[in-house]
Amino acid sequence: MSAVITLTTDFGLSDAYVAAMKGVILDINPAAALVDISHNIRPRNVAGAAFVLSTAYSFFPERTIHVVVVDPGVGTERNIVLLRTPAFDFLAPDNGVLGYVVRPYATGPVKNGRQALKSDAGVAAFAVTEPRFWRQPVSATFHGRDIFAPVAAHLSLGVSPSDFGPHLDSLAVLPLSCPSRAPDGSLLGHVLHVDGFGNLITDVTTAELPPDTSAVTVELHNRVIRGLSLTYGSGEGLLALIGSGGYLEISLKDGSAAAFLHARAGDEVRIS
Amino acid sequence: MSAVITLTTDFGLSDAYVAAMKGVILDINPAAALVDISHNIRPRNVAGAAFVLSTAYSFFPERTIHVVVVDPGVGTERNIVLLRTPAFDFLAPDNGVLGYVVRPYATGPVKNGRQALKSDAGVAAFAVTEPRFWRQPVSATFHGRDIFAPVAAHLSLGVSPSDFGPHLDSLAVLPLSCPSRAPDGSLLGHVLHVDGFGNLITDVTTAELPPDTSAVTVELHNRVIRGLSLTYGSGEGLLALIGSGGYLEISLKDGSAAAFLHARAGDEVRIS
Amino acid sequence: MSAVITLTTDFGLSDAYVAAMKGVILDINPAAALVDISHNIRPRNVAGAAFVLSTAYSFFPERTIHVVVVDPGVGTERNIVLLRTPAFDFLAPDNGVLGYVVRPYATGPVKNGRQALKSDAGVAAFAVTEPRFWRQPVSATFHGRDIFAPVAAHLSLGVSPSDFGPHLDSLAVLPLSCPSRAPDGSLLGHVLHVDGFGNLITDVTTAELPPDTSAVTVELHNRVIRGLSLTYGSGEGLLALIGSGGYLEISLKDGSAAAFLHARAGDEVRIS
Repeated sequence: MSAVITLTTDFGLSDAYVAAMKGVILDINPAAALVDISHNIRPRNVAGAAFVLSTAYSFFPERTIHVVVVDPGVGTERNIVLLRTPAFDFLAPDNGVLGYVVRPYATGPVKNGRQALKSDAGVAAFAVTEPRFWRQPVSATFHGRDIFAPVAAHLSLGVSPSDFGPHLDSLAVLPLSCPSRAPDGSLLGHVLHVDGFGNLITDVTTAELPPDTSAVTVELHNRVIRGLSLTYGSGEGLLALIGSGGYLEISLKDGSAAAFLHARAGDEVRIS
Repeated sequence: MSAVITLTTDFGLSDAYVAAMKGVILDINPAAALVDISHNIRPRNVAGAAFVLSTAYSFFPERTIHVVVVDPGVGTERNIVLLRTPAFDFLAPDNGVLGYVVRPYATGPVKNGRQALKSDAGVAAFAVTEPRFWRQPVSATFHGRDIFAPVAAHLSLGVSPSDFGPHLDSLAVLPLSCPSRAPDGSLLGHVLHVDGFGNLITDVTTAELPPDTSAVTVELHNRVIRGLSLTYGSGEGLLALIGSGGYLEISLKDGSAAAFLHARAGDEVRIS
Repeated sequence: MSAVITLTTDFGLSDAYVAAMKGVILDINPAAALVDISHNIRPRNVAGAAFVLSTAYSFFPERTIHVVVVDPGVGTERNIVLLRTPAFDFLAPDNGVLGYVVRPYATGPVKNGRQALKSDAGVAAFAVTEPRFWRQPVSATFHGRDIFAPVAAHLSLGVSPSDFGPHLDSLAVLPLSCPSRAPDGSLLGHVLHVDGFGNLITDVTTAELPPDTSAVTVELHNRVIRGLSLTYGSGEGLLALIGSGGYLEISLKDGSAAAFLHARAGDEVRIS
């Protein structure tokens, strides 16, 4: 069966860890189409992987299987979760890396770091516990090759998600960064992600900005940007604009805003 | 329809920008075969992308679609161009990145940075202006995902190039580096590109060298190399040879000529 | 014919050398499935490529063709070898890069850096000398594009290995690192490879360790680790464990053991 399987890991591109996973998948389903999302997630950066995944998964064909192996707890008691949503399947450690994915399906408050899923939204989560779909023997340090890869391949061949293990009511989530309101009425956001161009992607979305963005000022590390630009090519120097993911971004014309401002993920941004 | 689509960008491999483009393409044409040329073009380095593309495009199967998104002007008034040549299709910003590709089809002088194309050479260029083939809404900052990817996918399904927009008579070109003759008769070339091994690829081609290359001396940063070698493994120390793209290269046995000579793109090379 | 072809090179990902190889392969066999093992082998690091290949090749479907181009002797007198084993085909310079692959099929001592192959083990090696399968003209500096790629593609279409050139009785091998016994009875191993997480993978395998690993101490650069852990997530600080390739590994909880210990390939490890 032809199916798209994407891979997001912190394995880097110097070792053959990603290739070993691909070999295992192709050995089970030779027709799988493998697409790399990124393998350059910083080691063990679950929050970073969650964000990078969130910027790409929705553009793939329906029923694409998204596999995420950023898994500092590999071999410990954390579950591996298979999440079926109306459009996609996700296979990931149950460590919060699917935080953006589950947001539309969340119900009730986060308890002990876990988020319950709506029962009537066409989503279902399963713990991956059924060893008959795994490569044997299973290495305690490389579940990507020995569990994630064969499970994804069998899933792509049409095995039902519930065959891989028991139903889960909730998923681990990380606290997702979101802007807050300062006493003076201005909005305090944060840098979510620094991209490869040095653009600073913040947690402020269009919904939180006034309709007239020409009056907006954006302040980071005592630098003030007045008004929003439409494109990276407009104006001069520092720009603020709405990026392709719908987030407010700070960018430097022909340069890296991150390097220029010495800014990084977590830094505060004030919008007024 | 099975078709090869290649991607050349300056997006890097840490973010999911490339993956978002691939998702969009596969959603429209699940049978497309996607091949990365490079995503490590230095940000906004149009000339570098033009060179890297020139070293690979011709080796692909006929009717491969080559997509190039090194596009500092994204969202501004620059056109996106679809160029059909007898063997390939190219989709790129009209910013000069197809400079090497159009060279065989050029006619007349470059005017205002634009090169007219021969009318009888089996090439045709089109401005990509027809929004019905685009993802909606189109982000002003990510035409790769919202215009280039869906247009490439529809093209791979057999849509006619002229359906994507009006005919263009000329394309933007960059001044291509080429060697000149010094008053003393020696040839002054330039480093075009430093490759990952640290080899210095120059703009001097076999055509400009004498038939007997044993008498050639190559000089860069006051270092002199006498005669040409056949392979990277021959001789000792600095070598000059004709590389796989037909250009004169300067190489260091078992090392990086670029690091050894502190050399970079643009540096002058004297051949006598 | 649908066939998997993997690529392992030291070409890096900034240039289009890998893409040129892929273009040539797809031009001959459009149905080939291309998988990257790694292109970030350090330039000319034949031993490193041999190790990286050894951690991935066996996970691929039977009859996968593994192409390795880490080839400092390109264009010189070294052979290109096509090795058929019961499960896979390998195409590589005859420079030792297949050292781990041939180990199960070795017979007799290594003579002049060459290892004879068993005649009854279902393996056969051939020198790739038959130019009719090559791209013409053959560049002296890029056999990857002009010989390896077209030969792999023709092989994937079912051409018999013996059609590519004459039979070889032996292959070049590098001295493979292996642990030795110190006078005091402790085991002296070596760091084989530092992976992208900074894990130090040694040449000590489970076979050389006592059954009760709780009594094992591992010493590197005067740091002592007592007992083996099961996972990267267990314990605190420096850990020793058996990695996914069956080798003893030294790892740092939530960090890079290589950076912490200033360790690199070749460093000695004492196990007692």
